[in-house]
Formats: sequence, structure tokens, C-alpha cells
Amino acid sequence: MTLKLVVLYAQPSDPDAFDRQYLGTHMPLVHAIPGLQRAESGRIATYLDAGEKTYYRVTELYFADEQALEAAFGSDEGKAASADYAQIAPPGSRMFIQTVDD
Amino acid sequence: MTLKLVVLYAQPSDPDAFDRQYLGTHMPLVHAIPGLQRAESGRIATYLDAGEKTYYRVTELYFADEQALEAAFGSDEGKAASADYAQIAPPGSRMFIQTVDD
Repeated sequence: MTLKLVVLYAQPSDPDAFDRQYLGTHMPLVHAIPGLQRAESGRIATYLDAGEKTYYRVTELYFADEQALEAAFGSDEGKAASADYAQIAPPGSRMFIQTVDD
Repeated sequence: MTLKLVVLYAQPSDPDAFDRQYLGTHMPLVHAIPGLQRAESGRIATYLDAGEKTYYRVTELYFADEQALEAAFGSDEGKAASADYAQIAPPGSRMFIQTVDD
């Protein structure tokens, strides 16, 4: 069963500075993670509900299964990406693991 | 530029009843929407942050571009899926349009 690690990045105080760090530093670290099948990311363009614009960007990292995901974040590359995430993620960002329906 | 319509379903009061409606009624309506390129959905298995378990399920609908997305939800099938969404989405669910980075 495919698993996704999903991050909902909260609104950064300086979006341009965030994007520079995210695209220039963070994503290269992410792409180095062993076992990563696919990474998809993008900014939120429009909110279709009446709620607050809580989140700024969504990132999804695909892994084959739980074993692959655990191995990925147990690796040096996974730890480096996690440490960088802790540096760049604005307060209120959310991170969860989602199963992907067949 | 690929666009995704993303729904974060808040926790339903009765998850089993929600899943029955979602899988049995809602997704068939979604798959009938013209111009839909891909639909991906799945339940949240694990929260990796210390926050509340706000969301239960994530659904992502892929469209080629803004024109395709507008046409999709202007169609009878799109309106039927939207009306059903309004029936089943638990309060606090979020819906937004995300651009997908190349």
C-alpha cells in the first residue's frame, strides 16, 4: 500500500524568502532521500471555503510502504531533510502520513 | 500548469458511515466529472506533529488547467458532485486549489 508523507506548510511571514529556502535548499535534500518514489508540491492558489488561509504550500512524498518510509527517515539523508524541515516550517504547519486508496 | 482541487475532510462523527457514503456515493459522482485527469484519496493514518487530529481524509482531483477545472464544475456532473460534497463534508473541512510545481 502506497504511503504519502504530507506536509501542509502554514503561511510564512516572508513568502519569497520561504520559497527561496524551500526550492533552493529543502527540496534538493528531499530528493536525496533513499526510497522516495515521487515528490509533488505546489502553492495554494485559491481557497474555496470561507475559512482562514491557513496553509501556503502542500508537499507530498510517496513511498512504497511503511518499511520504505521508515528506512527513508532513518537514513542520513532523511535525517538531514527532517532537520531542515524543522528550520523552515512556519508554526502551525501540519505533517501526517496518508494511505493512498487503490 | 496542472491544478489540483484538494479537500481536507475533517473528522466525521461516524467514520464508518462517512466511508460508506464517500466510497459508495461520492466518489462515483466525482469520477463522472468531465475533464478530471486523476483522483487520489486516502485516509490519514498517523499524525507526525503534536497538533490535533483535525483531518480524516484527503482527496485530490487533478485538472489540466484553470479552464478545465472551471468547465468541470460548471457541468451537471460537477454540480452534482459539489452538491453531494456539501452533504457529506464534516464541519471544518477545507477545500482549496493548488498549483502543481513542474
